[in-house]
Amino acid sequence: MAEPTRRPGGRSERVRAAVHQAVMDLVVERGYGMFTVGDVAARAGVADTSIYRRWGTLEDLTADVALTWLTTNSPIPDTGSLDGDLRAYASGVARDIGGPAGLAILRLVIALPKEGEARDQFLAERGKQLQTMLDRARTRGEHPPDALEVLDHILAPLYIRTLFGTGPLTPEYVDALVDRL
Amino acid sequence: MAEPTRRPGGRSERVRAAVHQAVMDLVVERGYGMFTVGDVAARAGVADTSIYRRWGTLEDLTADVALTWLTTNSPIPDTGSLDGDLRAYASGVARDIGGPAGLAILRLVIALPKEGEARDQFLAERGKQLQTMLDRARTRGEHPPDALEVLDHILAPLYIRTLFGTGPLTPEYVDALVDRL
Repeated sequence: MAEPTRRPGGRSERVRAAVHQAVMDLVVERGYGMFTVGDVAARAGVADTSIYRRWGTLEDLTADVALTWLTTNSPIPDTGSLDGDLRAYASGVARDIGGPAGLAILRLVIALPKEGEARDQFLAERGKQLQTMLDRARTRGEHPPDALEVLDHILAPLYIRTLFGTGPLTPEYVDALVDRL
Repeated sequence: MAEPTRRPGGRSERVRAAVHQAVMDLVVERGYGMFTVGDVAARAGVADTSIYRRWGTLEDLTADVALTWLTTNSPIPDTGSLDGDLRAYASGVARDIGGPAGLAILRLVIALPKEGEARDQFLAERGKQLQTMLDRARTRGEHPPDALEVLDHILAPLYIRTLFGTGPLTPEYVDALVDRL
């Protein structure tokens, strides 16, 4: 993970952290679309204008929150084998989206407008992380699936079960998805 | 499909159809959470009070819209073989959720509160339809997958690709999902 470019401890960074946390809390409590910039500002203890100046729209702000969460969670493993990497990656994703923050992020990404850049950016980032892992396997002489197969048969079942609330993502279930792929 | 219990040209049925259409339009245009009962009433040309009296909350109304759409779309096929049924079912789902109404319904179901009954009802209905098809295959002596495997490896990829906007659901893609299962 890259270090934050702003000095940790600085006022700007504190505001950013407070605003991000406020968005996460509101998404978890009320759902995306059920709060305004004013609600975020009130909860974070900052002025509405600070948010508008820094992030533009509520949509840009929520996209920033989703991207930040993504790049600091579910890091791409490097265990030395494709099998080990896929298992570690799948169980990391299951753990992260199993919590309330993960469900909120998923809902948030899905609610982003189809035309906006935010979702494309999120998916490009996720895709790039995954591709790095699969390319490493190919370099070792292994035969990795393509990134879309990982999306369809590992990430999609985890995401849909989380979104629909159908059953917990147990380690056995996650391993079975990897075995099948 | 069951016939509507209300007389089709009756006023009650006309109101119901207009209100349902207004909800679908608003979900497609603005997204779930971005409109009120007042917006629905204005668009459907009915009084707010008619909606509150008949459906209770906005949430109950949207759940009714989702359930109705589900039970009148993607009917369960009966082709005489498991393979034929799965292909017909998967391509029906791909066609239905590929349109703007399908995406709106998916988003709507996902946005329903975890604690509410509405989503459980939606999932139970979908699960029952699927189970009927798989039971029929078992009766014929075939070896069907269980309903959760169909959810994980056919419905989940179709849903996630639709929600994330990653690529069209071509007939070849849908067939490949069935082949793999």
